[in-house]
Amino acid sequence: MKIKNGTSAAILIIGNEILSGRTKDLNGNYLAVELLKLGINVRQIRIVPDEKKEIVGALNALKIKYTYVFTSGGIGPTHDDITADSVAEAFSVPLLLNEKAREMLASHYANGKDDLNEARLRMARIPEGATLIDNPISKAPGFQIGNVFVLAGVPRIFQAMADSILTNLDSGDPIISRTITISKPEGTIAEKLAEIASSFPEVSIGSYPFNINGDLGTNLVVMHEDTALIRKVVAQLSKM
Amino acid sequence: MKIKNGTSAAILIIGNEILSGRTKDLNGNYLAVELLKLGINVRQIRIVPDEKKEIVGALNALKIKYTYVFTSGGIGPTHDDITADSVAEAFSVPLLLNEKAREMLASHYANGKDDLNEARLRMARIPEGATLIDNPISKAPGFQIGNVFVLAGVPRIFQAMADSILTNLDSGDPIISRTITISKPEGTIAEKLAEIASSFPEVSIGSYPFNINGDLGTNLVVMHEDTALIRKVVAQLSKM
Repeated sequence: MKIKNGTSAAILIIGNEILSGRTKDLNGNYLAVELLKLGINVRQIRIVPDEKKEIVGALNALKIKYTYVFTSGGIGPTHDDITADSVAEAFSVPLLLNEKAREMLASHYANGKDDLNEARLRMARIPEGATLIDNPISKAPGFQIGNVFVLAGVPRIFQAMADSILTNLDSGDPIISRTITISKPEGTIAEKLAEIASSFPEVSIGSYPFNINGDLGTNLVVMHEDTALIRKVVAQLSKM
Repeated sequence: MKIKNGTSAAILIIGNEILSGRTKDLNGNYLAVELLKLGINVRQIRIVPDEKKEIVGALNALKIKYTYVFTSGGIGPTHDDITADSVAEAFSVPLLLNEKAREMLASHYANGKDDLNEARLRMARIPEGATLIDNPISKAPGFQIGNVFVLAGVPRIFQAMADSILTNLDSGDPIISRTITISKPEGTIAEKLAEIASSFPEVSIGSYPFNINGDLGTNLVVMHEDTALIRKVVAQLSKM
């Protein structure tokens, strides 16, 4: 069931710590919620390891398929931070020391530029042609190139960066979501539900069973950008 | 930095409710932790919508690339449950009413087979050639076909199904993970760290900065299946 809307997005989470299960990803969910409010459908979330080949492959697959791609992670100073290198490769542009990024970084340290050792300077290497994304917390900037937005992995910084760019995105009509709770198990309502769903093929109707202390029920989530249409579907569903 | 190990896995999470941010995925993290204990590297987690084309595309991409693929979600009785249809299509086999699955399902309802309406019978449609995976909670089975394991999306059921199959997997040497905490920010240790990492290219060393009430530090996570090698790397890292 497709949510009809022109503006789409993918989120690419980069990090071995997520794939090993050591760290739970919070950024995908945060951004998905914020993007939906703007009418931008997240169509895929993909988590890949800290390996250039994997990151470049994912970027190339996602950036041609979706309006926007947002990445999380891999822009710090250490050897396993290779997102900027990978994005430069995916866009076939050089990765250059960016003077503005260097100044931003220097402002974070007590001794300014004197504290920028080789490792920290890694964070000022930005693909040619990219626009910087402000990092109000630890200064090392993210960046945008083409339709790809490169954000930090630390959730507090990711969120600050995301909030600063979201207002400028070319978004769709906000997608409205209504949840109806039916006190019957999925299997009882499924046939009628399928009928209603097929009369409104343009509306996304998700069905999510629950079991609260033995009470079986179903949450139905109706999503579309047209409030009147949602109201119609909800009226039909409520009769069940 | 690649964790060297022969056995790999991908996890495919199916569901609009995850992409809309309404529901937080718990299954990917649960399974990643369990697989790592068995020495199986999760190399990708991908979240896709309830759309056949998307599910089939993801299955085809992942099942040739990784030793195992585990899916979560979309095997209930409603119109948006299309995982079995998609798996059958990806394997080019028919989706058939499975007699054993029908009996399992019937055992869940007060009136047995009489309670199996058309919607509930959807859950007994299994790709030809698949082996059933027991569902101790709500009976509707998962299944395995080729290297793909199809599990329920409800976390309690997903976990029960996963636990029942994990013991039978062809796994690698268990991957051991050690975390060292250094009371210095990443940027200070990054150069030395890169040196150590490049002397042990076969070992995965992840670097994760933290900030606890203004105290900056770095957690270093060392992963490999060889304890002696890990001990060597940890000794080097501890000197920082």
